[in-house]
Amino acid sequence: MDAFSPALRELLDRPGPVRAAGAHNPLGARLAERAGFDAVWSSGLEISASQGLPDADILTMTELLAVAQSMAAAVSVPVIADCDAGYGNASNVMHLVRRYEAAGVAAVCIEDKTFPKVNSFVPGRQTLLPAEDFCNKIAAAKAAQSRPDLVVIARLEALVAGWGLDEALRRGEAYAEAGADMVLIHDKGKSPQPVLEFLQRWRRPVPVAVVPTTYHTVTADELSDAGAKLVIYANHGLRAAITAITSAFDTILRDGRTTGIEDRISPLSTVFDLQGMRQFIEAERRFVAERGPVEGVA
Amino acid sequence: MDAFSPALRELLDRPGPVRAAGAHNPLGARLAERAGFDAVWSSGLEISASQGLPDADILTMTELLAVAQSMAAAVSVPVIADCDAGYGNASNVMHLVRRYEAAGVAAVCIEDKTFPKVNSFVPGRQTLLPAEDFCNKIAAAKAAQSRPDLVVIARLEALVAGWGLDEALRRGEAYAEAGADMVLIHDKGKSPQPVLEFLQRWRRPVPVAVVPTTYHTVTADELSDAGAKLVIYANHGLRAAITAITSAFDTILRDGRTTGIEDRISPLSTVFDLQGMRQFIEAERRFVAERGPVEGVA
Amino acid sequence: MDAFSPALRELLDRPGPVRAAGAHNPLGARLAERAGFDAVWSSGLEISASQGLPDADILTMTELLAVAQSMAAAVSVPVIADCDAGYGNASNVMHLVRRYEAAGVAAVCIEDKTFPKVNSFVPGRQTLLPAEDFCNKIAAAKAAQSRPDLVVIARLEALVAGWGLDEALRRGEAYAEAGADMVLIHDKGKSPQPVLEFLQRWRRPVPVAVVPTTYHTVTADELSDAGAKLVIYANHGLRAAITAITSAFDTILRDGRTTGIEDRISPLSTVFDLQGMRQFIEAERRFVAERGPVEGVA
Amino acid sequence: MDAFSPALRELLDRPGPVRAAGAHNPLGARLAERAGFDAVWSSGLEISASQGLPDADILTMTELLAVAQSMAAAVSVPVIADCDAGYGNASNVMHLVRRYEAAGVAAVCIEDKTFPKVNSFVPGRQTLLPAEDFCNKIAAAKAAQSRPDLVVIARLEALVAGWGLDEALRRGEAYAEAGADMVLIHDKGKSPQPVLEFLQRWRRPVPVAVVPTTYHTVTADELSDAGAKLVIYANHGLRAAITAITSAFDTILRDGRTTGIEDRISPLSTVFDLQGMRQFIEAERRFVAERGPVEGVA
Repeated sequence: MDAFSPALRELLDRPGPVRAAGAHNPLGARLAERAGFDAVWSSGLEISASQGLPDADILTMTELLAVAQSMAAAVSVPVIADCDAGYGNASNVMHLVRRYEAAGVAAVCIEDKTFPKVNSFVPGRQTLLPAEDFCNKIAAAKAAQSRPDLVVIARLEALVAGWGLDEALRRGEAYAEAGADMVLIHDKGKSPQPVLEFLQRWRRPVPVAVVPTTYHTVTADELSDAGAKLVIYANHGLRAAITAITSAFDTILRDGRTTGIEDRISPLSTVFDLQGMRQFIEAERRFVAERGPVEGVA
Repeated sequence: MDAFSPALRELLDRPGPVRAAGAHNPLGARLAERAGFDAVWSSGLEISASQGLPDADILTMTELLAVAQSMAAAVSVPVIADCDAGYGNASNVMHLVRRYEAAGVAAVCIEDKTFPKVNSFVPGRQTLLPAEDFCNKIAAAKAAQSRPDLVVIARLEALVAGWGLDEALRRGEAYAEAGADMVLIHDKGKSPQPVLEFLQRWRRPVPVAVVPTTYHTVTADELSDAGAKLVIYANHGLRAAITAITSAFDTILRDGRTTGIEDRISPLSTVFDLQGMRQFIEAERRFVAERGPVEGVA
Repeated sequence: MDAFSPALRELLDRPGPVRAAGAHNPLGARLAERAGFDAVWSSGLEISASQGLPDADILTMTELLAVAQSMAAAVSVPVIADCDAGYGNASNVMHLVRRYEAAGVAAVCIEDKTFPKVNSFVPGRQTLLPAEDFCNKIAAAKAAQSRPDLVVIARLEALVAGWGLDEALRRGEAYAEAGADMVLIHDKGKSPQPVLEFLQRWRRPVPVAVVPTTYHTVTADELSDAGAKLVIYANHGLRAAITAITSAFDTILRDGRTTGIEDRISPLSTVFDLQGMRQFIEAERRFVAERGPVEGVA
Repeated sequence: MDAFSPALRELLDRPGPVRAAGAHNPLGARLAERAGFDAVWSSGLEISASQGLPDADILTMTELLAVAQSMAAAVSVPVIADCDAGYGNASNVMHLVRRYEAAGVAAVCIEDKTFPKVNSFVPGRQTLLPAEDFCNKIAAAKAAQSRPDLVVIARLEALVAGWGLDEALRRGEAYAEAGADMVLIHDKGKSPQPVLEFLQRWRRPVPVAVVPTTYHTVTADELSDAGAKLVIYANHGLRAAITAITSAFDTILRDGRTTGIEDRISPLSTVFDLQGMRQFIEAERRFVAERGPVEGVA
């Protein structure tokens, strides 16, 4: 739980894929860590959905940062923060770098769409920022950085916005040139082909992240073999939770009781375990005196 | 989504049980509303677990209030706020009433344990406040109240703390006398018997809430027939989510891809629906001009 | 202290000027109310300065809203919220209207500069949004509004941006047409002449607000006689505080003690009074039992 | 502005008094730093007063921590956080230590009154915690600490609560034994005599802090000569601001304009300077492209 030295850079230097799972609160981050994920993706989609609000820069940096910070304090694995389009222009990016650094986050990811952005899987407005402006944002992020271990990720939305592979590669190179520590090539198609082709044609020493949400048949090892370094399962915890909560709630109302779901919900002991209740009780035994009996009305 | 007139009092006047489901964020609140629950329980256990912290007054009023407020803004059904032991003494209770009222919450529930409390299902320190002091807290809550529709619930922990039914009834009567709009009789045993006996012996016109977490075989209708008015399924959404997320994460790491879970996680379209993305896009069509083509490097 | 019905509309219907003072926290709001101001201006400049950050959309809606909400809870006079450029596009404006309404704010003010904006008194980037886009923002605000008493103010930056009076008037008319409940004509010159001329040429029934920060020789009555309805003293509390704190701190370090400033700092009794300590102690006497003597090591 | 290595321990090793000034926001912290204070006291009284609420554990840890964190991010000098009575029992203290450490704060100060506390200058309820319980709180704080540079200050309220010097000394020794890095001897009388006598009789190597609010005639050098290491001017910035804002507001309403106060309020240029506007504009010049002329209606 050392919030200030998440060793993301070390992970990136190891062979094989680094696997991250999306989360929207410290509980999800802890479940990802316990399952064995190498890192946590502080997902804009998950967090906005958890708040019942569109994933379209409706939530503010303050709200997204608070989640990332609480997750960084709750797990030992590095937290990679989805920072959407950087919350505005290059000045906003400089501010976010300072704030996320102070929050103990390992990496910030900024996408090359205009502010306010709309979720990449939503048809319609998907507008790219001029490449030059986005290079300035990356350069601004690097100029604002004070913790050397922070990783600045430039997210490429050219495929999502319909501009094609050549544009994605040109932009990726420009962003690497501007100082990006990693690029993330995003896509929304069912085939991994465009992403695999991007990886094949990528020549820079800068590592590449991928997000196989829609093209889910390809494995992390296949992506790694093709040249990807970071594989992000960005929103599956949230989606598993929605299905499970819906089913549980429906059953409770149908049955008028919870007996029918008791075997598919975690016992309270698991909840307490995830809350750190054991350590809490041990500390209470050391430091909180028991003073007399519990009190009744007499 | 009218945050300021959740008609909890109306629901309490209808025949039959009022059923509430626990939630820890607006998404869970919305799932409860869509499933058909009459109300949302802003659960201290769920919220603290979502933050990876013990349910023991480690989270502050500020953090719990923020969740209750965001849920009240996200659903039309009333939000009942679990306010633990009132965050301190009677002065803290007066402050919380003012703040939760302003947040659009329908009811606040305060328990008669000492501050800081520990979750009722955790063995060990379960200390009752002297009844007289808790009556003062209830009276203080009522004195601080300015919105007439706010419901002040006095939660009885006498059974949890091992003081027995007579103590629970004596305290319940004293709290009703002090102004409580409802009492909540809590228990942690596997049998509903103690709670059913409480209901049978309860003579006051003040309605009673129950929380069948451990004694789950009894139905809402049976509890209602026995005299309960509000039945709270306090933490089942959270527990369903933990099981589902754990299973999804394990499968992803085992398979190296998400194909194996795609049929048991909600599709992105459901996520967008829960975020209000359709209304968002409609509003964008009315109010956000499309200006020229998306921009590439050229 | 009724956060939900600040009667700004009533004030606007009375003859003579409505005078608002800027504040950046509940204490400042309370000082404005006690001095006799009719309303409080939740100032973006004051709040960003209090945070030591530029007034350039670096602070988020969350941070500015939190201040406005806490001020609305602390005073009986209406709070008028400076919402900068609306925190993004028309979708962000709809979101802010819902959130500020729920926070008990009486009015929201949005300016017709591009997001992110820069403070109007800072030379350089002062870019106007196309008028049509800003009309859409105003229309979006009105469409999102659910509390009929909320006042939506359209702030005209044409003079600040160097576009002149004709542009300001054309835009003002367009914004009134789009639904603005009030327009605010802003200027940064030393002479009140441009603003007075705007007032003279303004033909709409929509009331006009003015901010005599730089052109300070003109009085509220003169501005009112010329047709202004709301006169905002936007940042004078902050600036008085900076001078006074600087002087106090310098004196303490010079003298090595505070004796030399005791007669120009408020006594602790005044601080307690502004905190509501008297009402607090009275409530404690009613609701908090004194239990035995204070405890020592003995 | 390095939030993570405020060299408070270095300052304590230097000869002569370390002088801290109270503040309630980053602006005040920056004014203290510019004036030449060695450290900033994140004052519970100032912060609660700025929120218009009693200084009586009505504000939560979340709210006080947010202020301390924002101040630590805004200044280079160390921030010493007034943590009242530790927000509850020893478990709450462990939580606060983890959170304040992560926030970049240099020291936390906890007082030996019961929770909820009431401001020491308010007559009435001033109840000491049993010494043994407070020793447990100090030990818990030290056990929770992970950053070796964090300073844990034990604040002695024995004089304030009327228990006298012997009790203060016995408790101070017990707290030092329990691991306190510093003790703070507080008093509310007009004479420095009790505090000077405490200093004279103090035999431990643990440094002592003093707060000459009421006994203001004694100088920092005199206190230092008597053995005090840290001298805190806890609330003078706030009190200077209240007087100045009140006077400015009264004058504006009397004159109907601000001309009469222009020479005693800081110019806007000073406000901008304190906000870091110059560095902001320089960064914008590097990283934010100017795209075409400002836009008008045409």
